[in-house]
Amino acid sequence: MHEGSTQIIFLGDGMGGRPVPSLGGQTCLEAAATPALDKVAQGGECGYMDPVSPGVAVGSDTGHMAILGYDPSEYYTGRGPFEAKGVGIDVRPGDLAFRCNFTTAEDNVITDRRAGRITEGTAQLAAAVNEAFRDGIQGVDVIFKESVAHRAALVLRGKDLDPRVTDVDPHEAGVEVPLCEPLPEASNNAAAQRTAWIVNEFVHRAHEILQDHPVNQERQAQGALPANIVLPRGVGTAPDLSPFSERHNLSGAMIVEVDLVRGLGLYLGMDVVAVPTATGGMDTDEMAIAQAVVEVARGHEFILCNIKAPDLGGHDGNAEQKMAAIAKVDHAVGYLLDNLDWDSTVLMLGADHCTPVTLQDHSGDAIPIAFYGHGVRPDNVQTYGERACAHGSVHRIRGLDVINILGNYAGTLHKFGS
Amino acid sequence: MHEGSTQIIFLGDGMGGRPVPSLGGQTCLEAAATPALDKVAQGGECGYMDPVSPGVAVGSDTGHMAILGYDPSEYYTGRGPFEAKGVGIDVRPGDLAFRCNFTTAEDNVITDRRAGRITEGTAQLAAAVNEAFRDGIQGVDVIFKESVAHRAALVLRGKDLDPRVTDVDPHEAGVEVPLCEPLPEASNNAAAQRTAWIVNEFVHRAHEILQDHPVNQERQAQGALPANIVLPRGVGTAPDLSPFSERHNLSGAMIVEVDLVRGLGLYLGMDVVAVPTATGGMDTDEMAIAQAVVEVARGHEFILCNIKAPDLGGHDGNAEQKMAAIAKVDHAVGYLLDNLDWDSTVLMLGADHCTPVTLQDHSGDAIPIAFYGHGVRPDNVQTYGERACAHGSVHRIRGLDVINILGNYAGTLHKFGS
Repeated sequence: MHEGSTQIIFLGDGMGGRPVPSLGGQTCLEAAATPALDKVAQGGECGYMDPVSPGVAVGSDTGHMAILGYDPSEYYTGRGPFEAKGVGIDVRPGDLAFRCNFTTAEDNVITDRRAGRITEGTAQLAAAVNEAFRDGIQGVDVIFKESVAHRAALVLRGKDLDPRVTDVDPHEAGVEVPLCEPLPEASNNAAAQRTAWIVNEFVHRAHEILQDHPVNQERQAQGALPANIVLPRGVGTAPDLSPFSERHNLSGAMIVEVDLVRGLGLYLGMDVVAVPTATGGMDTDEMAIAQAVVEVARGHEFILCNIKAPDLGGHDGNAEQKMAAIAKVDHAVGYLLDNLDWDSTVLMLGADHCTPVTLQDHSGDAIPIAFYGHGVRPDNVQTYGERACAHGSVHRIRGLDVINILGNYAGTLHKFGS
Repeated sequence: MHEGSTQIIFLGDGMGGRPVPSLGGQTCLEAAATPALDKVAQGGECGYMDPVSPGVAVGSDTGHMAILGYDPSEYYTGRGPFEAKGVGIDVRPGDLAFRCNFTTAEDNVITDRRAGRITEGTAQLAAAVNEAFRDGIQGVDVIFKESVAHRAALVLRGKDLDPRVTDVDPHEAGVEVPLCEPLPEASNNAAAQRTAWIVNEFVHRAHEILQDHPVNQERQAQGALPANIVLPRGVGTAPDLSPFSERHNLSGAMIVEVDLVRGLGLYLGMDVVAVPTATGGMDTDEMAIAQAVVEVARGHEFILCNIKAPDLGGHDGNAEQKMAAIAKVDHAVGYLLDNLDWDSTVLMLGADHCTPVTLQDHSGDAIPIAFYGHGVRPDNVQTYGERACAHGSVHRIRGLDVINILGNYAGTLHKFGS
């Protein structure tokens, strides 16, 4: 047992939205059947949350950073470091980290950015690349590791590196593989020039190794596209984030379905708990996720859980799918309501951002939220939704406020002043 | 055609206020008949906006800066640069700019601060002053230009200048023309001393030239007061403001009736569109202004429009006049509702500050606002007014948030993170 109540942040990824004409002007969240979410709203304090500030759309990385109490305006350097951490590379201060794709190129022209959506053999390919760069490049360590499918990460570790360089991945097929170059503002910077040179050397030499690798020979023999080149992008320096346990003095766990967010959790030193049947898709096992939250709550003071499915329907512009995904979130929350001791648990229900089906992308709309559990002052809001939560007693807060409000109810925050 | 919806900020200058006893405790905005503004509130998201922060009263310059996304706490240096830009002087980084009055003085005592509200001949007077300073003062360029009526602007361009000097204009008649002096905190600063000396030299020599100028001889022959001295005040260094188009990646236009705001627009490189029948008074042609907005919207991504009239009744303490001015704003907004395509337009309705008739000056009261158009989530607010908007779903935002919220609905903002 620990001091204070257990703190849970439960997010439906991209769960907020905008009015949908085919739903009579209701949002997906308003139109979906959500008895458990409504029960949280009825017993809780509702309101709006802007992850960064009103109107600003965020990614899953910046949204989760803010909600976990790390100001992305101050700390965010790019997705690369979280991707690299997520695939298991030990990212250190000073490192440059890139997200990479295994790609197919022919005569230096990109044929398929995802190498025929390769699913097997990338571990052997990555091992061969790493072996080739065992001595690094110009004194810089090269660490390369495969992730799921065509995804991988690259870390450069050494002196005189600068992240102000262009992506090698042009984000489209049918074009030549571009060279990495210093960004215009760093065109005369020696470290940026050196970094670009090293990245190009990596891409060039890795291409030579992958071209004739047995995995690719086998793929081509079977009529599959070879994963014969690696394209780095999304570079970021390792951000200087203090561990979650130090910053908040809480033992923290994360149960999430997005690699990028998992990488953030690992970066913060949180216990990232895997749920084997959590797929990150519409077929995810939301009850297994809810059971894991209840289980993990026994040994942790803080848990962040995110179910990815609502975001998918938002991006696809599919209102029915998004409503079905929201129903899955509702089932999971219902399980929490039934199986946690609410005299010693506080919950923040919400989302990391809105993904309106009418926009098919993240929006900067305010996110409906509710705080529930021991100590809260329930307001008059009766349902969990965009318009209903607008009338709640939380009014409109920032992402950075969330963990303080939870800590306040949980009794784990120290007084500021005396 | 451009990407995203057209963004319009429509402001009634000083339109917000406080309860007025003669209106039974209603504000002017609440008591006025405003069917169009109410329609915006009914179909929009309402709330409160503080240009800088709660309780802080702003000027038209700082209020508009904040709403346009330039933090006045960081960038504002004084009204001088905007006045000078507004009268057509090319203000550059490093310049010192002053607002000036043509004034009447007799034996160095101020007789009339506005030179009998002179309306003609100031162009010749300014030309004579400029001619006299063709070689500058101690290596500093002197640029002087008349504005409307008794108003003018002065720019000093050169090295070793410092804005920490006092106004020459004492803001009252019957006193001696004071000398420009370094402010107390800069009393030992050589550049401030030099600047004060140059300002005094300008005032002194301009006085000599204007004293016997034919325009003034003619005025005196006709019994009018001579514009025989120039009193600089409100000095500011040129603020380092990036152009609107660069900062927001939007083609921006401004249709406003206040010189100071027009100067800000010019300073930001916006297209400042003149409406010949827009007088800035109670007799302004609000329908011509509304028509201009609809016209300009065809070629721009962003338009800021401000109708000055409500502010006048506020300053005069005249509730009936302010209500009549608010009705003019309502007519203009009604025209916009009827003549713009609201599937591809987003509107922010509001004010740059409140000017309560009970105060007769700008106040730091929160400003009622509404966002209307494509993508918004309409709340339950049924009328546009101070008390009604307090219950809206926007809650309470800052001036700097406005352009982000508009950009969110218009689809022109980039995601922060991935």
